[in-house]
Amino acid sequence: MRIDLNSDLGESYGNWELGDDAALLAIVTSANVACGFHAGDPTVLRRTCDQAVEDGVVIGAQVGYRDLAGFGRRFIDMDPAELTNEVLYQIGALDSFARVAGDRVRYVKPHGALYNAIVHHEEQAAAVVEAVRLYDARLPVLGLPGSVWLRLAAEAGLTVVREAFADRAYTPQGTLVPRRHPGAVLHDPSEVAERCLRMVRGEPITASDGSRLHIEAESICVHGDSPGAVRMARAVADRLSAAGVDLAAFAAPERTGLEGSRVHPDVR
Amino acid sequence: MRIDLNSDLGESYGNWELGDDAALLAIVTSANVACGFHAGDPTVLRRTCDQAVEDGVVIGAQVGYRDLAGFGRRFIDMDPAELTNEVLYQIGALDSFARVAGDRVRYVKPHGALYNAIVHHEEQAAAVVEAVRLYDARLPVLGLPGSVWLRLAAEAGLTVVREAFADRAYTPQGTLVPRRHPGAVLHDPSEVAERCLRMVRGEPITASDGSRLHIEAESICVHGDSPGAVRMARAVADRLSAAGVDLAAFAAPERTGLEGSRVHPDVR
Amino acid sequence: MRIDLNSDLGESYGNWELGDDAALLAIVTSANVACGFHAGDPTVLRRTCDQAVEDGVVIGAQVGYRDLAGFGRRFIDMDPAELTNEVLYQIGALDSFARVAGDRVRYVKPHGALYNAIVHHEEQAAAVVEAVRLYDARLPVLGLPGSVWLRLAAEAGLTVVREAFADRAYTPQGTLVPRRHPGAVLHDPSEVAERCLRMVRGEPITASDGSRLHIEAESICVHGDSPGAVRMARAVADRLSAAGVDLAAFAAPERTGLEGSRVHPDVR
Amino acid sequence: MRIDLNSDLGESYGNWELGDDAALLAIVTSANVACGFHAGDPTVLRRTCDQAVEDGVVIGAQVGYRDLAGFGRRFIDMDPAELTNEVLYQIGALDSFARVAGDRVRYVKPHGALYNAIVHHEEQAAAVVEAVRLYDARLPVLGLPGSVWLRLAAEAGLTVVREAFADRAYTPQGTLVPRRHPGAVLHDPSEVAERCLRMVRGEPITASDGSRLHIEAESICVHGDSPGAVRMARAVADRLSAAGVDLAAFAAPERTGLEGSRVHPDVR
Repeated sequence: MRIDLNSDLGESYGNWELGDDAALLAIVTSANVACGFHAGDPTVLRRTCDQAVEDGVVIGAQVGYRDLAGFGRRFIDMDPAELTNEVLYQIGALDSFARVAGDRVRYVKPHGALYNAIVHHEEQAAAVVEAVRLYDARLPVLGLPGSVWLRLAAEAGLTVVREAFADRAYTPQGTLVPRRHPGAVLHDPSEVAERCLRMVRGEPITASDGSRLHIEAESICVHGDSPGAVRMARAVADRLSAAGVDLAAFAAPERTGLEGSRVHPDVR
Repeated sequence: MRIDLNSDLGESYGNWELGDDAALLAIVTSANVACGFHAGDPTVLRRTCDQAVEDGVVIGAQVGYRDLAGFGRRFIDMDPAELTNEVLYQIGALDSFARVAGDRVRYVKPHGALYNAIVHHEEQAAAVVEAVRLYDARLPVLGLPGSVWLRLAAEAGLTVVREAFADRAYTPQGTLVPRRHPGAVLHDPSEVAERCLRMVRGEPITASDGSRLHIEAESICVHGDSPGAVRMARAVADRLSAAGVDLAAFAAPERTGLEGSRVHPDVR
Repeated sequence: MRIDLNSDLGESYGNWELGDDAALLAIVTSANVACGFHAGDPTVLRRTCDQAVEDGVVIGAQVGYRDLAGFGRRFIDMDPAELTNEVLYQIGALDSFARVAGDRVRYVKPHGALYNAIVHHEEQAAAVVEAVRLYDARLPVLGLPGSVWLRLAAEAGLTVVREAFADRAYTPQGTLVPRRHPGAVLHDPSEVAERCLRMVRGEPITASDGSRLHIEAESICVHGDSPGAVRMARAVADRLSAAGVDLAAFAAPERTGLEGSRVHPDVR
Repeated sequence: MRIDLNSDLGESYGNWELGDDAALLAIVTSANVACGFHAGDPTVLRRTCDQAVEDGVVIGAQVGYRDLAGFGRRFIDMDPAELTNEVLYQIGALDSFARVAGDRVRYVKPHGALYNAIVHHEEQAAAVVEAVRLYDARLPVLGLPGSVWLRLAAEAGLTVVREAFADRAYTPQGTLVPRRHPGAVLHDPSEVAERCLRMVRGEPITASDGSRLHIEAESICVHGDSPGAVRMARAVADRLSAAGVDLAAFAAPERTGLEGSRVHPDVR
């Protein structure tokens, strides 16, 4: 049994700090690094990539809308051809730092409103797929199971990686309960950790209506933007490691010879 | 005899058009393409790189300060380490489009106030050199003869390429007459073209005080931001070609097998 | 008979020039001045306001989404409360220059995608109305007849001003024919001028299906972003003036004592 | 005896939080509110102005260079005329929120690198003075005693207000010890509070070389960007209040009829 843990990183900007990147990089196997459009200035990107490589964490491009004031969380009705180019720009920019750090960008995961839009928005989903295909068709893409994004990526010949969310409630249909609904976000670290283990083992979890639900995913998304979030991510990693799950990136980092596998610090 | 002709391109932004890129790309051998910090949005960069490759023009990264409102023409007293990262970000972003177009970024030329600053500013010059060295130490750098920028680049083992300015008056010491001085800019295309030919042949030109001056350069910078500028660039290229000068990029583009040499359209 | 002529102005940015503001300010009676979010840097705003006051043209705030790269032409799904604040920021910023020029902002007209969105989008329309009401409830608002924007503005007690478009074809229902349809934009200046006169006189114009249509408007929007556009705006103004129509702003500029009335330069 | 306490506020941006504005607004008498160029989005400005008015704190415009990535801490060699316009834009934008909150912008204090530049830079200092004079010549300006900024402001007829820094060491000449020097920043709240009381009483403080130094100031700047900073600001306010010093803004807020005087919460 193996699973990838991914998290959003590199989201500070200039004088503004956000998230405990150092703590997260000691836990996750894949780092979705911001690319400067919704967050992340060049110096933040450099530092994040350097630390990721040092910690053996795989670097992915967390591409988003060009919207610092909105943190990429507002849908922008862009021309698809322009969106393709905006994504190409971001991947290339981040790749500069990944390469300087000794590795390279190894996957792409859209951020925020773009992530949500391309669950359904055919043209924007196709535009992001096109950007990845043009940049390097060997790059896997990370996203929501059942999304238009993953369907079009697969049709274009890209490797698709499905992710589950550690701390979000699921509907009986396997979609996320919207954040504004009560119970949408889980807060108990041990409950969340246990649920992640069930998902990895292929066992059903409990959906929001009490029914049983199977979630298939190659990666689990954890957060690190609060002390509580870091503790939860740590609890998930510890529980999985203790149960013998191999925490390993779905994409291999450069030059390690270890196929991206990671011995979790707590069980070394 | 051979010489490179370079020009600033890709400086439109969104709805704002600037420069006649199509006309220039039919004349020059090296395109200094803006990278989005002082000018150039991703779609402009994509289009410029595609056209450059189609026209057999070599792509260079025209890196600058992050200052759209000032078009990169205002000195910013940046921390050198941050400047290195800002330059890395820009080169990587542009390289994405150069690669999609079938080539890659083949040299670096700073823009505007950054270009002027690193003629003298040791820390900022070293910061830009460091960015190029980290990104790809085989990339040549283009700049002003006698500048700190070229000296530090050479000391760091980079290939340095010296440029002359087609339409600018020179002091007896070989520096440019500041723009605010009368006669700083030359306007007669045939005079400019003739002067360029003299420089290529190693013959002296006339400095601002009437004395004779030798300019050594591997590239000549021409402009294209007005109809008159395009006519002047064309006059320079025609005069040089007619005199048997090989207009050839100092850096070879990908896959041409032609060592960057270019048969000028007018003498094909 | 009287009518206002309005046009979008102040849309240059830094080194990028757009539109012939000087020519337009000699023609129109109301200037929709950009506020820096989709176009217009502070120096452009200052110059535009100064010239408007000198030419006796009333200044309005052309507020838009914060999107320089997209020129405010892309819908952004903003939180309405944030949109209210973004509009307040823009009106206040422009008012600074209007006051320095000796007048003040006298009306508000949304730009681009925001203009289009609030034809139908209740929450965003209400958000812009709220901004105007908070800033100064005496400011008229300019917009499309039948839009949610004008309906909510009227309900909030604001003065609403309806505009017609000089060069756009209308459907039999009185809405604009979308730009992508053939015949959506009219190109013959004398035809456009004649049609404007019919609208001012309360006579029917010909809709896209050949039927007769009455357009009620207190202002006509003309463009100035090309030499042809300026000629058309001039033709409209000349035709109306020659027919005895008083070209007069719907809002009075400061200190003129003339109720915003304007003797057109061509008939002085 | 009376003194003003001022602090930088409204410096969050979008998803990035900075500073404990609520805590500071319960302590200070004057709020230097960011204007969106170095920090502060429109929603942050609105919230900060609303809270300031509610707490009886006077609002000042903290104007800076347009440099989000550098937080306005990098000198930009701007054209003075453009700087005047950038400052006008910022004051007007903030004034919109101050007026909506029921007050208005009552003074101007430059931020960061602009603050430092105009201690010596004649052209930029004159440019900021010109902006204030054009906007409203009755607005006081806040700055460093002995600066070119305050000298030119006084010559232009503006009211100048001198500030001291609560937690910074002074040279025998009365200038600030640069931050990079050991001992440049004081960390003991009771020592800092005691020193502030001495300054208010007109008693000498100890300079960095041990000599005695008189500081004349109408306002003291305190910080709030860390829990320790808030505690120190609180200690200063408490010590001054306990000694009978009236904490009162130098500029009167609207509609209070209290001349800006403030009974400190802790001694109410």
